[in-house]
Amino acid sequence: MQVPSRVWLREVGPRDGLQNEPPVPTAGKIELLDALSKTGLRRIEAVSFVHPRAIPQMGDAAEVWAAITRSPDVTYSALVPNLVGARRAVDAGVREIEVVVSASDSHNRANLNRTTRESLEELGPIIALAHDNGARCQVIVATSWGCPYEGDVPVERTLGVAQVALEAGADALAYGDTTGMATPTRVEDLVGPTQQRFAGTPLLLHFHNTRGTGLANLLTALRMGVTEFDASVGGLGGCPYAPGASGNIATEEVVHMLEDMGVETGVNLGLLLDVAARAEQLVGHEVPSQVLRAGPRSRTVPYPEAAEEPAG
Amino acid sequence: MQVPSRVWLREVGPRDGLQNEPPVPTAGKIELLDALSKTGLRRIEAVSFVHPRAIPQMGDAAEVWAAITRSPDVTYSALVPNLVGARRAVDAGVREIEVVVSASDSHNRANLNRTTRESLEELGPIIALAHDNGARCQVIVATSWGCPYEGDVPVERTLGVAQVALEAGADALAYGDTTGMATPTRVEDLVGPTQQRFAGTPLLLHFHNTRGTGLANLLTALRMGVTEFDASVGGLGGCPYAPGASGNIATEEVVHMLEDMGVETGVNLGLLLDVAARAEQLVGHEVPSQVLRAGPRSRTVPYPEAAEEPAG
Repeated sequence: MQVPSRVWLREVGPRDGLQNEPPVPTAGKIELLDALSKTGLRRIEAVSFVHPRAIPQMGDAAEVWAAITRSPDVTYSALVPNLVGARRAVDAGVREIEVVVSASDSHNRANLNRTTRESLEELGPIIALAHDNGARCQVIVATSWGCPYEGDVPVERTLGVAQVALEAGADALAYGDTTGMATPTRVEDLVGPTQQRFAGTPLLLHFHNTRGTGLANLLTALRMGVTEFDASVGGLGGCPYAPGASGNIATEEVVHMLEDMGVETGVNLGLLLDVAARAEQLVGHEVPSQVLRAGPRSRTVPYPEAAEEPAG
Repeated sequence: MQVPSRVWLREVGPRDGLQNEPPVPTAGKIELLDALSKTGLRRIEAVSFVHPRAIPQMGDAAEVWAAITRSPDVTYSALVPNLVGARRAVDAGVREIEVVVSASDSHNRANLNRTTRESLEELGPIIALAHDNGARCQVIVATSWGCPYEGDVPVERTLGVAQVALEAGADALAYGDTTGMATPTRVEDLVGPTQQRFAGTPLLLHFHNTRGTGLANLLTALRMGVTEFDASVGGLGGCPYAPGASGNIATEEVVHMLEDMGVETGVNLGLLLDVAARAEQLVGHEVPSQVLRAGPRSRTVPYPEAAEEPAG
């Protein structure tokens, strides 16, 4: 199988995970981030600077950002929804900013209280602010493969949003499958034209496992040469539109599959599983990660000498 | 993406699913099988004829087999562990028999109380009995990608067991990833040589989602031209070696992904989801199916007019 020899995972559990969980105390978030920093992950989305009324779970973003113990090997980032958030991020010292805008207008309005066009018009000032402060700026196109209100999002719509983002000066591009509506052929249908049209632009994909297709989608993109993916430790987080549904793909499931395929992630699976177990305690309920439940494939069990019975 | 236009799913929830669940009453099994028969599935593994002391959940196999309402469009099969079970199956009127043998010796001993070699030696008589009674016989190679006691199973070991099965007269071959140890490259590493060495032999793959790789593995095999897969409604069943872990890949997750990719399954997803919901009631706990939780990707939610808040 032709796949890249190395991928770069961005851990988003502390942000996308925890914003869809019952609130975790500030100290717990700091503990989680510090533990993740020691696993070999090189990119961690630590917080988001959103209005506390919109997402109370992220109300302590500046406090968390200031308190974490930084590893020199890790790039920490923050997500922002608009210029106000970008200014808070820059003021807090963030030098890796992600701006989110939804390809679907109704999702953008529900999420950011404005149209997609209005969000796109603010990208220029946000990116300028970032660059003026020595920060990089990635634009995340949410609902890239579908919207919980509108259904399918046409490929051209997502590509159009990406185009505007890059013209506004974005340093990198991310596509978010916000509610797990992507399937392998849809991944190909969007990633193929993106690689052609925006050749040379760093592309990161963000898959949710809401409908079980997360790793199949990641595999499809990997075979197309994509090397940057988001994932969430333990599979933290859910889906606000489907109570009980899974959130992001679980980081340890990604690491477990890729390392077995000979694709290097740089992550120590054992350490990551310890963090996943701790994350489960912090949110107070079972998380979706299958590898956390079953252990890695290298885990064997003792042979049950006493259990032999005639089988037929 | 080059994939077959049609796949054939075999539903194994009533057998592989229920044998790893708390016992379900006979009437519930019959209800489940009759409901599955109306979903468009063409193959259903209904029961197994194993010793009731080994697997009490299947103690009513003959009763269930006799009581189900047969659809003329569905081929019903039964799994057997040995010649005694095969005779019971034939006597019950089964005309599609699966014999299971593990590639791993320790798993075969734990599961069937004999070595792999002893099981292989009995294949000839079992297949002859089947053929003498007008039945087809598939050999399922369990632990094809790994064993919970021994760890990795070498490709040559699995191929060797398959070879013996075909020389003994097996009509078809199945590889079982009994405890979810396969990953996409391992699927390629086994399926590629199988297709070369046993060209023309029907090949079915049986994946468990124990470590989250089930659909990625299926996708890999699909891209290699494999068109027969096992799956379990709701993702019924668990893993006896990892309490709380997932069992088989969920039939509705497979149908949902494949149909969206333009790969025909013949299955009505809405009807199947109704059966999955009922299966969840029958086993009395939440099943792993993500599509059952979140609904299919076509399901939209109302736009939350009242929920608008400033996001940043």
